Amino acid sequence: MVNAVEWKKGAVRLLDQTKLPTEVIFVDCTDVETVARGIKELWVRGAPAIGITAAYGIALAAQKISAQSFDDFYKQLLPSCDLLAATRPTAVNLFWAIQRMKETAQAHRTESPEALKKIMLDEAHAILQEDIEMNRAIGKFGAALIEAGDGVLTHCNAGALATGGYGTALGVIRSAWEANKKIAVYADETRPVLQGARLTAWELVQDSIPVTVITDNMAGFFMRRGKIQRCVVGADRIAANGDTANKIGTYSVAVLAKEHGIPFYVAAPYSTIDFSISSGDEIPIEERNQAELTHIAGNQIWATGATTANPAFDVTPAKYITAIITDKGVFKPEEIVRLKPSKRG
Amino acid sequence: MVNAVEWKKGAVRLLDQTKLPTEVIFVDCTDVETVARGIKELWVRGAPAIGITAAYGIALAAQKISAQSFDDFYKQLLPSCDLLAATRPTAVNLFWAIQRMKETAQAHRTESPEALKKIMLDEAHAILQEDIEMNRAIGKFGAALIEAGDGVLTHCNAGALATGGYGTALGVIRSAWEANKKIAVYADETRPVLQGARLTAWELVQDSIPVTVITDNMAGFFMRRGKIQRCVVGADRIAANGDTANKIGTYSVAVLAKEHGIPFYVAAPYSTIDFSISSGDEIPIEERNQAELTHIAGNQIWATGATTANPAFDVTPAKYITAIITDKGVFKPEEIVRLKPSKRG
Repeated sequence: MVNAVEWKKGAVRLLDQTKLPTEVIFVDCTDVETVARGIKELWVRGAPAIGITAAYGIALAAQKISAQSFDDFYKQLLPSCDLLAATRPTAVNLFWAIQRMKETAQAHRTESPEALKKIMLDEAHAILQEDIEMNRAIGKFGAALIEAGDGVLTHCNAGALATGGYGTALGVIRSAWEANKKIAVYADETRPVLQGARLTAWELVQDSIPVTVITDNMAGFFMRRGKIQRCVVGADRIAANGDTANKIGTYSVAVLAKEHGIPFYVAAPYSTIDFSISSGDEIPIEERNQAELTHIAGNQIWATGATTANPAFDVTPAKYITAIITDKGVFKPEEIVRLKPSKRG
Repeated sequence: MVNAVEWKKGAVRLLDQTKLPTEVIFVDCTDVETVARGIKELWVRGAPAIGITAAYGIALAAQKISAQSFDDFYKQLLPSCDLLAATRPTAVNLFWAIQRMKETAQAHRTESPEALKKIMLDEAHAILQEDIEMNRAIGKFGAALIEAGDGVLTHCNAGALATGGYGTALGVIRSAWEANKKIAVYADETRPVLQGARLTAWELVQDSIPVTVITDNMAGFFMRRGKIQRCVVGADRIAANGDTANKIGTYSVAVLAKEHGIPFYVAAPYSTIDFSISSGDEIPIEERNQAELTHIAGNQIWATGATTANPAFDVTPAKYITAIITDKGVFKPEEIVRLKPSKRG
């Protein structure tokens, strides 16, 4: 399986996903500035993968510090943390990972700066490893919901490329495939940025899992033809009532699934649930630039003079969601609220 | 208003719609082979425009025939008819137009071959003119269903570019606009060939009718946001039970409209109704080449190694259709069967 981010020979190796699928280019980032650039310029995308990359960026910066005391070490580390925090100001996993790295340093302030370098790198490794384990847990829980012979539709890319590895929605698909359930995967191309056609298709092909790519507007056609038995998508944020924000187009897939009596699953780490918001109506929808729509590979494909709209996400109300597959188990949307911790953790 | 097809100085002039919106190129076809190529390669598309183009293609072929008798003339005409009939399998107007041209020749078998040349050309002109008149009638009937302030979603291009002029679905929109009903038009981009973003947007911009282009997967989002009050689409073929074949993605829009309680209208000439088929299940779906999907403007945009599927049309069952707007009036889908003529005409 390909890694979106990994530690390789003292450098942070990022797969430049903007070049996929036509070019497979790994960039060995030997300084934190290049790591920050990789996040900012979308070489790496997907909330979990961004968080892991930031953690490794801090670990990388730590290796280069020459300090005599903890205070000196920490003082030299902070600018790298700030640099990384400024890359994608809305990515929650980014801040979470940076915070965790800082707290790890603080928790080991009695160690020598040399020892701290290894501790920081070990913590980044741990964040990566935990993410993969969460995805494997999601995959295992989700695979039990998939039957041999199913056609499984997914939208966007909630795969190895968006995470530490294995993926969430694609983790479910991988796990079903590894359990020898012969499934037929359908991937929506996912306009405008084509994450389905460029990334999901590419990573499944790398793993020799058969995948059929379709345009977003074909989902209904294939459902009606009886080709699709399950839908599995990722999530960017899940409200306490189960409403789920995910890539634009997810809601349309959910409505189509309901009309055809097809189960619609959301696969995401438990940490994606935001108990501080009671419904999806409170989730702000990012509006992205129109060039993503009107041009592809530098070529204009839309007429000039029309108004455009580019909401990057939509919210699927809980009533369209059959179940939410997390690393802590499978829940009906209405059960989510009962998982709320007494204190945020 | 721009003409998708017209007779110009002894040639069939086609607007090469594959080059829109960045280039406006007209091709003067001086032989039937080029006309056939124009249909096959989508320089001209849209069922009515294809029918008109085929009629002109036959008229063009007729001009070049050197014959001493009707039988000789007709025998020389048939290969051109067959060539044109082989271009696009789903468009009923294509076969209808070819049949009408053949019958016109047969009805004038006592005329000289020279006289027949003019008769054939006049018949093609008549088909074009009738189409425009039909579209204006459709527009008038349809506009009565649109309220001022409505958001009106359309899919693909059922406009002037798809017809002899004025358009069917866009005829309804034009007619409502001309009646001073301030509407907000939403156009699905309509992957893979982007007829909505390239053609519908372009022709509405030419006419200064405001239009917002969205990706296909945004339709549900805007319906849920209350931005869309009506859907109007064209049709390639309507079965006797009201089931309607139209551009891929139409069915998904219809399902979304139903879920949101939004009226879904099909606008098409009466001639689009194929009384010889009792339901949409009998409509063959054209499968087009995968390069339409995987490449845009010569650039590869999909991953290599995945299976692809490119059904050009889907069938929307009658139960999702609020009404069918024809040049003979507005009908509920279940009323269509009662319009069946005692003898095909």
